Amino acid sequence: MVLLAQAGAPATFTKEVKTMTDAAYDVFIDGLRNAHAMENQALSIMQPQLNRLEHYPQVSALLDRHIRETEVQIQRLDQILESVNESASGLKDTMLSLSGSMAAVTHSMTTDEILKNSLANFAFEHFEIAAYTALMTAAEQANMTQALPLLKQNLDEELAMASDIHDGLPDVVRQYIALSASDQRADI
Amino acid sequence: MVLLAQAGAPATFTKEVKTMTDAAYDVFIDGLRNAHAMENQALSIMQPQLNRLEHYPQVSALLDRHIRETEVQIQRLDQILESVNESASGLKDTMLSLSGSMAAVTHSMTTDEILKNSLANFAFEHFEIAAYTALMTAAEQANMTQALPLLKQNLDEELAMASDIHDGLPDVVRQYIALSASDQRADI
Repeated sequence: MVLLAQAGAPATFTKEVKTMTDAAYDVFIDGLRNAHAMENQALSIMQPQLNRLEHYPQVSALLDRHIRETEVQIQRLDQILESVNESASGLKDTMLSLSGSMAAVTHSMTTDEILKNSLANFAFEHFEIAAYTALMTAAEQANMTQALPLLKQNLDEELAMASDIHDGLPDVVRQYIALSASDQRADI
Repeated sequence: MVLLAQAGAPATFTKEVKTMTDAAYDVFIDGLRNAHAMENQALSIMQPQLNRLEHYPQVSALLDRHIRETEVQIQRLDQILESVNESASGLKDTMLSLSGSMAAVTHSMTTDEILKNSLANFAFEHFEIAAYTALMTAAEQANMTQALPLLKQNLDEELAMASDIHDGLPDVVRQYIALSASDQRADI
């Protein structure tokens, strides 16, 4: 914050304003905390899916891989937050607000659970891709460029996961159809 | 459906099974209805955002364009459903289930509404991209290839919208920071 109240300054200027860098720093820290909550939510979305899946080993393998990646992503975000002496406090509120927006993207009560989850997982990956893209812009504006390599690693993993979900989707649909035409359970 | 009950067939084979094409057709029709509901939900997400936006004319222009595109997309889905003598009935249930997964992706109660909505819009576009990708696979498996050009038009519009949201995101973040540093409202 920069105080514009100076001796002789007009009264209308006697107020607190943010510099651009201050404002960018606030957006950056908020973004880091949101990303931390987002990745925890990603875990809470992926693990139940992995536990339920029976007939889609390629999807199970993707989820298993990305759960382990996500755990490291959270450590990277912690590392950045610690480097600027900010804690992950205030995450509870953020979790609540994120839950309001992305909750229940799993569909365990539908007959086409694997299909709806595939669409939702692809969407969630892109929520994360946009979040890291925005966060990297905020880091640049806040002159926090030392955070960029770690954020880029997270971004690249989300991009790879999104690409793998997309590339695998036609096979998932064909397999769902084949299972539906047989006596086997098709939804998980 | 194909009845396997034939004279002389073993009793254990006396049951109804789906052919692959039957199963694919069911997935295709369900997918069309889900897509119809999804596009109506897209309208209900975009219009309130457009109504509220004040300081982001480039985002307003994108939303305005895509609302008009979405209205045509719904007509294309109607056209495909009519061509196979299926109605848009049953959409009510589908809307409810979709609402459970993608509702409240707008964030009118937060102080960074434009940022969260940008992430959510990008995610929603990819839900739609995955939906059309899956639907086109189902159409192929159901030998409904005449539907592919219309579905491809919808898919291409979603891809273009997603790309435009992504490309515009850094500017939105920079503008949000600049507005936050000034006396102006930054969130809408």
